[in-house]
Amino acid sequence: MFKALMPLLALLLAMPAHAVQGATEDGYDLWLRYRPMDKAARVQVRAAASSIVAFGPAAPAGSAPASPVQAAVAELQRGLGGLLGKEPPLAASVQDGAVVLATPASMPALSGMDLKLETLGREGYLLRSTRLQGHKVTLVAANSDIGLLYGSYALLRKIGIGAEGLAALDERSAPKLQLRVLNHWDNLDRTVERGYAGESIWNWWALPEVRDRRYVDYARANASLGINGTVLNNVNSKPDILTAPWIAKAAAVADSLRPYGIKVYLSARFSTPLELGATKTADPLDPAVAAWWKAKADEIYKSIPDFGGFLVKANSEGQPGPQDYHRSHADGANMLAKAVAPHKGVVMWRAFVYAHEKPDDRAKQAYSEFKPLDGTFDANVLVQVKNGAIDFQPREPAHPLFGAMPNTPLMMEFQITKEYLGYATHLAYLGTMYQETLGTDMHTGAGTVAQILEAGAQGSKLTGIAGVANIGSERNWSGSHFDQANWYAFGRLAWNPQADARALAREWAAQTFSAAPAAVAQVTDMMMMSREAVVNYMTPLGLHHLMGTGHHHGPAPWVANLERPDWNPVYYHRADKGGIGFDRTATGSNAVAQYAPGLARQYADPRSTPETMLLWFHHLPWDYKMASGRKLWEELLVRYDSGVAQVDDMRQRWARLKPLIDARRHEDVAVLLDKQYQEAVWWRDASIAYFQSVSGLALPAGVKAPGMPLDYYKSLKFPYAPGRG
Amino acid sequence: MFKALMPLLALLLAMPAHAVQGATEDGYDLWLRYRPMDKAARVQVRAAASSIVAFGPAAPAGSAPASPVQAAVAELQRGLGGLLGKEPPLAASVQDGAVVLATPASMPALSGMDLKLETLGREGYLLRSTRLQGHKVTLVAANSDIGLLYGSYALLRKIGIGAEGLAALDERSAPKLQLRVLNHWDNLDRTVERGYAGESIWNWWALPEVRDRRYVDYARANASLGINGTVLNNVNSKPDILTAPWIAKAAAVADSLRPYGIKVYLSARFSTPLELGATKTADPLDPAVAAWWKAKADEIYKSIPDFGGFLVKANSEGQPGPQDYHRSHADGANMLAKAVAPHKGVVMWRAFVYAHEKPDDRAKQAYSEFKPLDGTFDANVLVQVKNGAIDFQPREPAHPLFGAMPNTPLMMEFQITKEYLGYATHLAYLGTMYQETLGTDMHTGAGTVAQILEAGAQGSKLTGIAGVANIGSERNWSGSHFDQANWYAFGRLAWNPQADARALAREWAAQTFSAAPAAVAQVTDMMMMSREAVVNYMTPLGLHHLMGTGHHHGPAPWVANLERPDWNPVYYHRADKGGIGFDRTATGSNAVAQYAPGLARQYADPRSTPETMLLWFHHLPWDYKMASGRKLWEELLVRYDSGVAQVDDMRQRWARLKPLIDARRHEDVAVLLDKQYQEAVWWRDASIAYFQSVSGLALPAGVKAPGMPLDYYKSLKFPYAPGRG
Repeated sequence: MFKALMPLLALLLAMPAHAVQGATEDGYDLWLRYRPMDKAARVQVRAAASSIVAFGPAAPAGSAPASPVQAAVAELQRGLGGLLGKEPPLAASVQDGAVVLATPASMPALSGMDLKLETLGREGYLLRSTRLQGHKVTLVAANSDIGLLYGSYALLRKIGIGAEGLAALDERSAPKLQLRVLNHWDNLDRTVERGYAGESIWNWWALPEVRDRRYVDYARANASLGINGTVLNNVNSKPDILTAPWIAKAAAVADSLRPYGIKVYLSARFSTPLELGATKTADPLDPAVAAWWKAKADEIYKSIPDFGGFLVKANSEGQPGPQDYHRSHADGANMLAKAVAPHKGVVMWRAFVYAHEKPDDRAKQAYSEFKPLDGTFDANVLVQVKNGAIDFQPREPAHPLFGAMPNTPLMMEFQITKEYLGYATHLAYLGTMYQETLGTDMHTGAGTVAQILEAGAQGSKLTGIAGVANIGSERNWSGSHFDQANWYAFGRLAWNPQADARALAREWAAQTFSAAPAAVAQVTDMMMMSREAVVNYMTPLGLHHLMGTGHHHGPAPWVANLERPDWNPVYYHRADKGGIGFDRTATGSNAVAQYAPGLARQYADPRSTPETMLLWFHHLPWDYKMASGRKLWEELLVRYDSGVAQVDDMRQRWARLKPLIDARRHEDVAVLLDKQYQEAVWWRDASIAYFQSVSGLALPAGVKAPGMPLDYYKSLKFPYAPGRG
Repeated sequence: MFKALMPLLALLLAMPAHAVQGATEDGYDLWLRYRPMDKAARVQVRAAASSIVAFGPAAPAGSAPASPVQAAVAELQRGLGGLLGKEPPLAASVQDGAVVLATPASMPALSGMDLKLETLGREGYLLRSTRLQGHKVTLVAANSDIGLLYGSYALLRKIGIGAEGLAALDERSAPKLQLRVLNHWDNLDRTVERGYAGESIWNWWALPEVRDRRYVDYARANASLGINGTVLNNVNSKPDILTAPWIAKAAAVADSLRPYGIKVYLSARFSTPLELGATKTADPLDPAVAAWWKAKADEIYKSIPDFGGFLVKANSEGQPGPQDYHRSHADGANMLAKAVAPHKGVVMWRAFVYAHEKPDDRAKQAYSEFKPLDGTFDANVLVQVKNGAIDFQPREPAHPLFGAMPNTPLMMEFQITKEYLGYATHLAYLGTMYQETLGTDMHTGAGTVAQILEAGAQGSKLTGIAGVANIGSERNWSGSHFDQANWYAFGRLAWNPQADARALAREWAAQTFSAAPAAVAQVTDMMMMSREAVVNYMTPLGLHHLMGTGHHHGPAPWVANLERPDWNPVYYHRADKGGIGFDRTATGSNAVAQYAPGLARQYADPRSTPETMLLWFHHLPWDYKMASGRKLWEELLVRYDSGVAQVDDMRQRWARLKPLIDARRHEDVAVLLDKQYQEAVWWRDASIAYFQSVSGLALPAGVKAPGMPLDYYKSLKFPYAPGRG
């Protein structure tokens, strides 16, 4: 009997207990885990954070924080309590080792301390070890309560990443962009267009009566990054969202987010009054239409006094818009802008448009339509421009509109959810992709895209950035643990568009997985190589839009039968016996001419075009000589192979991390990396099989042939892929 | 400053901490919470459960249980560890106070102990305080490992509900039905038809590589009730589910459930081979078709050796079936049965059918079509019959088919998800509804429906029961805490169809909320009144199918414009100036004739028909005299008012429970009860407004008039209601 028992005994001692205790490192806590620090660090930090001093009124006991200060104190108690193993008490007066949250209003003494708070603006904060009323304290100072909340999260972050002690703390930070907004492509039936993390977190059906506690955790996570706005519903919007029952639902969400400094916005369908039968047209110049929108705005602001405004997708992919009435985008945007202006609301008007007519190059259309409108938009309109001119590809050159509309506030639109980068399954850290765009010098004299966004438009203070959310109801929020990093990186870059992607990766890894230097270094290295791996096995050398039709999952470079030419991958790669690539120079669509001369010249010549974007701008013969000395065909094969090899490398690095990562999340990630490896091989093999079929070229010695014939890859169908919306 | 601080201090000490620690009583643990018992009880129980003795091989360390014995030991350690505050160690040999899990195979000594194990069958168990090898132990004995798992859950349940000590334990139990199955109406895109608890827990997209840990917790919850099968996909099925990639996904789920004794079944679309282009027809008598199904079954059993079989919805609501080829339901079922028979699989063929032609009474169709087929089905076919003849209404008389097909194994189909009873929002304990049907004497000489199900068919051992699951991805599994009770009650009744609904409610309440007698009593009383409340404010006195079109949410008795007459509420209530109700006697559709004479006579006369079903069987004048002495019109109004009053009563009872229930779940339930109250008032007002408009009768003194005019209620639309599937 003993014999038979031994293995069972062994099993049970080793068996993980968390099957039911779902919360143990299941990813729900995001980067706000606040797990205990090692003893030495704890002692050091406790000396500077042993109590909390705050000011201001309180909400009724038992309820969630009702103000930013209450939220800040609650988070400091939760965070320090977790990190230090003991929740710091609230102190009734300033004492040694206290964390003091103060504004000039709550503590007039600050004004005399030469803290230069005026440089912080409304949302900035100051962290300083200093003496206050004769006591050594850790001061969190700001001009407003929301600044104190941001400062408190910054303090917890510093401690969480195991930064040097707080003894000589002296740090100040203010956001460089005004509107830092998430765009939820969430539908009213709770499906999420391009969502890969389960259904929408907005439980519309149960709202407004039922407010999911998750809304508050969502607010905490966003506030910890400085995100201060969220568009609740899909840009492909419905008239319903602007009816009374739905305004009440949005108001309930707004109430949950308000204490964390997050404003609610709504996507508006341009034809709403017409579709609701309130008007006979949606013509923006029709007085009845303008009056309806004005009344509607007034109605919304009655329930949501700090409503942010409207996001609009018009005359794009079949959505209605002002052009249906031969009016311009400016006519449409300004009509809406006048409706929200009295309430200090804004209109975020998307530049992602493409007409129904066959375009000579889809990449040119946004610029062609919007550039001429520069200076014609009302003061409270922002034009929201995607990072690239096509559509959230693994790599795109910066959109030519950046720097081209000096008199119009432009807002960046990044995609956080990985529509074209392997859904939530593939590990692809997008911080590097965001930084690549933000760091691009547009040669307009205004510097990089980041600097252009920060400077804003002539005579306007309005600046902003948007990220299409990757958030859903799945326990880990983003569909995979590593996808949380893209939410994090977007938020931190929204605060400071010139931040460094590697530094942000390090920050995130330390808070999310482990502050152990070996773990941080390894996880960061994986993240930094991850997006380039995806580019290599999906769309190397500037190739783009080769994904499966509709669902955008997996390779389909052969698709040529879709109604619109610019929906077909063949439209983008143009591969034939002679060569491959999209000629966007003067001999082709001349899209390069949309860039400032300096950049246009660079992109016009394959020799000065970065090889990473070579086939985006040029159609080249298969034997084109690359910098490596290889022929283009050979180089293409090398890139595909390196993409697969990089995933294998990530997989091995992760395996080595096992001793440093909690068992559950380590296994979760390991399973996904195996899946990603299989899919990388699939991308490589299908792409090579196809391009070989058009180039007719042999595979050089040493290049592994695709595992299956081309027809097999063509036969794969995914009718139930997520995210169709 | 001190002054200003005090309230903030108060707030923070009181603020609930669980915003992020989602697991603290968020409902995820279901009835398997295993929270610590009070000290006295703990001491008493520890004496009889201080260690665990088990036999058998073990799975590799770190992985989940790989066999029922491993699952039993893991659950006992988790459960006793939680309840007693200390995890009982595994003992290498029998000792005093040990819990011993043994079968005659693992412990031959049992055979000599006169335990009458032969009466337990394959799945039953015995719990007994006895002496073993000279030691006082708590013995869990069974004929098979799965019996040991069921016995272990039974032991934990006894302890969890604070039953008397284990000193004189002597209990045996065996399931009275063979197949105890959940039906998931889950679609391949992860939506759930009639699902109100978020999207499907089956993450089809990530399967088979990614196996959500939740699958194991799902298996634990079901095994704790004795559920031994699950149909993974919607009865409105797709051909895809029977293709290789999906079989692999189903096999991965089956691997997760197998150690818990749960078999996987699939819903099959009758036209699958035709739609996949493998055959030119789906005619069940076509040899090519039969051959395809045989090969398909062989393919499935290669990946899922213990595959349960197929569930089929054919020639119903537009689904394809054998009648498309002028074959009978038996022809179709038997063809599939022959494909799975070599593998010991079964076919569960649904009797929920209604033709495209205008019926004289939809309630009659299932009986009319299936009764003549009695005795013509293969031995491994079960006909699955809904509890009532219409469609999962708040109250229906038992289906006339029960007892009418003595030569055919009939399976009961209950609906656990509340399609017609207020979704997850309304508190409605269905244990009483299930018991009402199961306890109905069909007057066929075979006793009650429960007894008919238990006895099975002539010369067949095949018996079973199915429940349409209310399980989804929401953290609390069922969309609300109280809806977990319907999953629980179904499972326990599947084990013993003659169990008492109140006893099950008590069990569930004690394990789920609190074992404190005051809490158990109050929660049980709320549950026992809850379903009658729903009947009263929705469909009193035998009214049925008055719900909104399609989504079935809210009142719509006025709907008369739908294509099929039997889709319209007016078809069912037939209210006019003269009276109300559906005449199913000889003067009407004569559906009563489908019941055995004893029951038919009772239902044929309004005087002998229970008032709860009066208008189901009879069309009566508004001034018909009720037992109460009131006129029918007045009685109807009284019932609507009492339904609203009962919800208000539940709300007040729950409020009084606040000191006894954890704060988070108490608030969750309180919010839903408020919403239910509003919706009960809505049902009452809209129904009265409508019936008054057709009866033309005044409201008696003291009856409150509807809050809004009828047109308002007619104007309400719910285009984004969940569960459309």
